[in-house]
Amino acid sequence: VKPEVAQLRAVDWSGRAVRILDQTLLPGEVRFLDLLSPEEVAEAIRGLRVRGAPAIGVAAALGVALAGERSSEAALTDSVMRAIESLGSTRPTAVNLSWALGRMRGVVESFVGKHGGARDRAPEMKQALLGEALLIMEEDRALCSKIGENGEPLLEDGHTVLTHCNAGALATAGMGTALAVVYAAVEKGKRIKVIADETRPLLQGARLTAWELVSRDIEVTVICDSAAAWLMKQRRVDCVLIGADRVARNGDLANKVGSYSLAIAAREHQIPFYSACPHSTIDLSLANGSGIQVEERGEEELRVLGSRVVVPDGAGVYNPAFDVVPHAYVSAIITDRGVVRPPYEGKLGG
Amino acid sequence: VKPEVAQLRAVDWSGRAVRILDQTLLPGEVRFLDLLSPEEVAEAIRGLRVRGAPAIGVAAALGVALAGERSSEAALTDSVMRAIESLGSTRPTAVNLSWALGRMRGVVESFVGKHGGARDRAPEMKQALLGEALLIMEEDRALCSKIGENGEPLLEDGHTVLTHCNAGALATAGMGTALAVVYAAVEKGKRIKVIADETRPLLQGARLTAWELVSRDIEVTVICDSAAAWLMKQRRVDCVLIGADRVARNGDLANKVGSYSLAIAAREHQIPFYSACPHSTIDLSLANGSGIQVEERGEEELRVLGSRVVVPDGAGVYNPAFDVVPHAYVSAIITDRGVVRPPYEGKLGG
Repeated sequence: VKPEVAQLRAVDWSGRAVRILDQTLLPGEVRFLDLLSPEEVAEAIRGLRVRGAPAIGVAAALGVALAGERSSEAALTDSVMRAIESLGSTRPTAVNLSWALGRMRGVVESFVGKHGGARDRAPEMKQALLGEALLIMEEDRALCSKIGENGEPLLEDGHTVLTHCNAGALATAGMGTALAVVYAAVEKGKRIKVIADETRPLLQGARLTAWELVSRDIEVTVICDSAAAWLMKQRRVDCVLIGADRVARNGDLANKVGSYSLAIAAREHQIPFYSACPHSTIDLSLANGSGIQVEERGEEELRVLGSRVVVPDGAGVYNPAFDVVPHAYVSAIITDRGVVRPPYEGKLGG
Repeated sequence: VKPEVAQLRAVDWSGRAVRILDQTLLPGEVRFLDLLSPEEVAEAIRGLRVRGAPAIGVAAALGVALAGERSSEAALTDSVMRAIESLGSTRPTAVNLSWALGRMRGVVESFVGKHGGARDRAPEMKQALLGEALLIMEEDRALCSKIGENGEPLLEDGHTVLTHCNAGALATAGMGTALAVVYAAVEKGKRIKVIADETRPLLQGARLTAWELVSRDIEVTVICDSAAAWLMKQRRVDCVLIGADRVARNGDLANKVGSYSLAIAAREHQIPFYSACPHSTIDLSLANGSGIQVEERGEEELRVLGSRVVVPDGAGVYNPAFDVVPHAYVSAIITDRGVVRPPYEGKLGG
């Protein structure tokens, strides 16, 4: 199955539906879902069937186009604006979501500005919406390749890279962000090994990162998140390489919970700590990380393991999905535009 | 069920069997097992049905006594020595195991030294073995109380304590080590909250620590291990308080994997990092932590979640059960003999 698996797309447009690979079923089952309404897209984002900051941006944009496709001509603007709003509320931390929806809103606004609500222009507007969504998707593919190309010189032949969560092909429309760097290095003939934090509570590292690396024949070892510092101590890690869900102007960045802990440990062991993301992940409206809203997810993600209750009644659960890594811990931010080193201020924008 | 639950003993002597609370079934089911042979005791230790450095020392000592009880008079010395050897090989990291077995061996050797292999003395030797095992168990109870008493002044009214794995009543024959400090502080009228790392891969924090705290009406919140540093950053943790499986003369200490990561994060946030253990956990034969053997456990602990395979075939797994916290990160070691502050050299022995 390997060659096909490597071609799988986390999110795509089928011609009539938003087609996603249902990531909640991996690695046991490879099943695609055709989402036929913006509500189904919103549910899939909220339920993490499609996840990863760039991928949810793409899925949401396609969801807006879908709202257009399915709407009557009379209700078109309303339907589309409603879809933008509802998709925007699915997850708060990744900025790519509001960035992609902002572009879709721009299409609506510019269209309405030019033509008003003229019904006979509806087919044209639908086409413009789908065109913009497909463009966002294609751009994401291209950005991923560019991130890989920009980042790969940071990895040396023989390096072992520690990663957290999944910032791979499954998190984007393309070949990934952090993992794009690994793929590009491997393509250049470098021997790279990956250590994947399993990434509690939803195990994206074990289920997704390990799966996509195995499918590309890259050596990967899964560890408990809490073992990462111990491996660094044993000099078994050459760098930490993660994605990002939102980056502030000063380089503070939000990523999957546990990233901050890794960043502290990496600095303690003088191991470089890199984050890779498309420029759309940079939120220029934020001076620093204190303005980033960190999503708290449901208790059941920790309370139940398989079908077994593992946290007893009467005990509380705190389940932040992300944390914020202060820029002082970040050795470099790799984007499609290049590799930015500290100080980040003034270098991440524009 | 609360009052009874608080009285439950993780390991006890039933009069004819080693009675343990099967911790693999918690928190869903409270089931006791009567272990009727040293082989059953060894299996229970290896399978983590009874776990925690002090508790496995007690269980092993009782297992040796059981070997004596069940042996013919002719084979007594052989049976007992064989049980000591086999129980000693069950788990490598906790020193309490070899410490307790060393005491049992001492009983055999002193008896054989005095009386030779005289068969008519067999009942006496059996009694001496059981007596020593029961003494180890009772001492452990007393040591736990003493640890609590010594440590409680370190906790202030209103403090939130972060702990990892289970160093509570379930890890000892008594009220615990790290949690004994919490219990003693609560008994003194201090309001203490606990944050429990769930503790992958086996979730002793979620399943065991949360369970015993709830049963004692102490407020506890379970988090993913990787979220601990993020909580420290938010100033939601006043101190870290864990147990230990082996402590070297210089204060380096082995404990559940993830302890090292917590220690780094605690120092980064200037939060005190305490370890509590009975003096039998201190291994005076070791100058420092480099000599501590860290147990690696099976891959299936990470590969399978409930009945679901979460790490794909083709991916490796590395599963160290412990790590070693260098003494430089340890603010104090709390034992039954007192609270030791750095430098530890020369203060942990004798």
